[in-house]
Amino acid sequence: MALILCRIKGKIVTEHDFYHKHLISMEDLTPEDISQILNTSKLMKGISERDVKKAPTLRGKTIINMFAEPSTRTRTSFEIAGKRLSADVINISTSGSSMSKGESLKDMVANLEAMRPDLIVVRHKSDGAPAMISRWTNCTVVNAGDGRHEHPTQSLLDMMTILESKRKLEGLNVVIFGDIKSSRVARSNMIGMKKMGMNITVCGPKTMLPLYVEEMADNVTTSLADAVVGADVIMALRIQTERLEKAKFPNAREYSRLFGLTLSHLKKAKHNAIVLHPGPINQGIEISPEVVEGQWSVVLDQVTNGVAVRMATLYLLLGAGLQKTE
Amino acid sequence: MALILCRIKGKIVTEHDFYHKHLISMEDLTPEDISQILNTSKLMKGISERDVKKAPTLRGKTIINMFAEPSTRTRTSFEIAGKRLSADVINISTSGSSMSKGESLKDMVANLEAMRPDLIVVRHKSDGAPAMISRWTNCTVVNAGDGRHEHPTQSLLDMMTILESKRKLEGLNVVIFGDIKSSRVARSNMIGMKKMGMNITVCGPKTMLPLYVEEMADNVTTSLADAVVGADVIMALRIQTERLEKAKFPNAREYSRLFGLTLSHLKKAKHNAIVLHPGPINQGIEISPEVVEGQWSVVLDQVTNGVAVRMATLYLLLGAGLQKTE
Amino acid sequence: MALILCRIKGKIVTEHDFYHKHLISMEDLTPEDISQILNTSKLMKGISERDVKKAPTLRGKTIINMFAEPSTRTRTSFEIAGKRLSADVINISTSGSSMSKGESLKDMVANLEAMRPDLIVVRHKSDGAPAMISRWTNCTVVNAGDGRHEHPTQSLLDMMTILESKRKLEGLNVVIFGDIKSSRVARSNMIGMKKMGMNITVCGPKTMLPLYVEEMADNVTTSLADAVVGADVIMALRIQTERLEKAKFPNAREYSRLFGLTLSHLKKAKHNAIVLHPGPINQGIEISPEVVEGQWSVVLDQVTNGVAVRMATLYLLLGAGLQKTE
Repeated sequence: MALILCRIKGKIVTEHDFYHKHLISMEDLTPEDISQILNTSKLMKGISERDVKKAPTLRGKTIINMFAEPSTRTRTSFEIAGKRLSADVINISTSGSSMSKGESLKDMVANLEAMRPDLIVVRHKSDGAPAMISRWTNCTVVNAGDGRHEHPTQSLLDMMTILESKRKLEGLNVVIFGDIKSSRVARSNMIGMKKMGMNITVCGPKTMLPLYVEEMADNVTTSLADAVVGADVIMALRIQTERLEKAKFPNAREYSRLFGLTLSHLKKAKHNAIVLHPGPINQGIEISPEVVEGQWSVVLDQVTNGVAVRMATLYLLLGAGLQKTE
Repeated sequence: MALILCRIKGKIVTEHDFYHKHLISMEDLTPEDISQILNTSKLMKGISERDVKKAPTLRGKTIINMFAEPSTRTRTSFEIAGKRLSADVINISTSGSSMSKGESLKDMVANLEAMRPDLIVVRHKSDGAPAMISRWTNCTVVNAGDGRHEHPTQSLLDMMTILESKRKLEGLNVVIFGDIKSSRVARSNMIGMKKMGMNITVCGPKTMLPLYVEEMADNVTTSLADAVVGADVIMALRIQTERLEKAKFPNAREYSRLFGLTLSHLKKAKHNAIVLHPGPINQGIEISPEVVEGQWSVVLDQVTNGVAVRMATLYLLLGAGLQKTE
Repeated sequence: MALILCRIKGKIVTEHDFYHKHLISMEDLTPEDISQILNTSKLMKGISERDVKKAPTLRGKTIINMFAEPSTRTRTSFEIAGKRLSADVINISTSGSSMSKGESLKDMVANLEAMRPDLIVVRHKSDGAPAMISRWTNCTVVNAGDGRHEHPTQSLLDMMTILESKRKLEGLNVVIFGDIKSSRVARSNMIGMKKMGMNITVCGPKTMLPLYVEEMADNVTTSLADAVVGADVIMALRIQTERLEKAKFPNAREYSRLFGLTLSHLKKAKHNAIVLHPGPINQGIEISPEVVEGQWSVVLDQVTNGVAVRMATLYLLLGAGLQKTE
């Protein structure tokens, strides 16, 4: 599989092996790594568009989907990704697991590892759980979202979607708005997009901006109307309505009036700006129905690319070594 | 795969392609379509009787089992059917899904579709949900039971079971009794069996008969003793005991005395009459234990044929095109 | 697949066919059967250590994992075992199943059998449920733990782990301690280990020893300090802390002080003694953290061998016949 890599920050990136064992944080990836994943994802997307959506690449590999937080969407995406590459995929959720019998996470992971999986996909409510797990085990770990920390495959699928539409990442103006502080999606994207040379504007009510946000973004503002001016890419975040009520903001209606993306905002952005959302969408709160349904919306492309990015991730982490021997 | 089709209403049915994209309602099928499914099911049943119960027919196809109502039985039947044809099968239940985060059905389906499944099997508590889903997506939809509306694969497996025993459908006297109004099984069978030229008698307490039932059945009666006279086929329906208590009928005992099928009823039917039930059975309520256990009971054949009918459905909807190119 | 069998009670065991249809109880197995399973497990373990962890042995076989009690660990072990041998594995849990609609176990099993599975793995809270199921069906049944009765694959994986470490079973001194009365693991091991000529010492508070325990074990004591003297193998059992509070014992602290395994106990055992635990472990209650983490602990080997023993069990029950025809 020949990988044709793109140009990043003026430098041509040539094919190289992917030397990572885990995918825990966007911090761990170089721009070249990100490029390689995105290019591999493009090839993987082709498999999902075939009549026979199946490649034998990961035959005989065992992947455990360990979801300690409910998530049909991400779990399904990883499950489909694994199965399309012919891996054996085993789903584990905490409800009904021995963790409800008081077993520690460490013990549970040690036990799973003893069954010789090749890779564990981890969704966990605690920041850092996947990183801890990667230190406890010899098998590969992929972070599928940990607390308010990171969600690297989401950032990768977002960048893949932007790249498909804009043909480049470097130099693009991207606006990320909403509850930045609580969002692992925002965090992974701020890290990843900065590496790819994107110009990041972050927007949200003050109560929803993290400390030191200025170090992570190029611009910070509390006005969505200001933020979107000249934007190439606008990324809405899901607002947790249950959090809204806990004093961060008066109420959903007020929030929507100030931080809901509408057609009038789009007029201030570049004429060919695109709109992303990690889903599930609260229509009429963080984003208006007209914006979701318009031709600028690439929300469903994100989902399609999610499967491709996860296939690429599984392939590069587990299967890339095969290239050398085959 | 050469399909030898049967004679319907005096006309010989020859092999033809199956041009449907979805299976939502028995209304959509012609007698020829039904015949083709039943004949294909017979071939598929052979696969489940082999030592190696596996055919490569749907390799590389992705099937999502979306069950928004609990149903181990039907879900398992579809899962086994898909796997025996080598498809990748992904189970999704609503508990633990993003629908519990307030996502609309439409958004959820759009997201699933973006992952490029080939077929979605839908069980939903609302009448018409699978039909709506089929309009929202480009992928194939199979109705696995929607509210009080339809359950087409149940009707097809019922007819397959009758055909195995009687060698024909046309002209047979079939009695369907119980809570006709609430039963999607009754509804799909009234539609399907009429198309196949069966003579349908419907029986239940007045409170459990739908409006315009006379237009759907050849005979309507509130006396089970009258209904079964000369019957070739007797189909009991599951009574929802929780519904019984809600004023439709005094109580389960009273119901059982008037609408429970017993050996005395069977004496009035044809000597080789068969008894069907879609399960799970409330023994001693809608049907007596002696009737369930007797040689006239084809209840377990229905379950076996369920897998075959679902294999045929998946094959015809997804795989039939292969015939042309192979 | 040539099976090199070991020496039991001084007799050399030669290769022979495995004539069992079910695995319900260690009572049903001869020492030769146990030996054959353990030897086959050793070969199966090799598959899990390959780069491509997959053999086509059970391709086209349908295995249903019917877990009527939650157990991620055992369910996952059986699921991985089945998939590594290329079987189709279907998971069924009771929550969300038709059993919650009041269906009897017998009806549920009859229905599952009608879908033509080759093997049903059963975990059930009632003693004897798998045995009953094996009488009701024509397909193979494997007991994955029933109430306080038996857990045969656990006993087999325990013996495999001991054999790996000690190169023999016969004549070894094994101590099993804890709530012997409630433990299906203890029961299966007392039966199995006796057959293999091991010298069994059982230890626990009087309230946790079953009637007639003297007939099942070579020595019975209520002193853990006495029990471990000269032991080759020490097997801790999980204490159900919720049971502790129900008057069997004053409290967890008291229990731990008298029946918790510590380093001081290990000093009385043989210098190369090993420690087993079926998991999940209550660290600091039945076993101290130092003991769990030490080099004598083979707890994770047990888990690894669990997959191997289950592969061997599935293979011998379903696939051994293939040897003859291939």
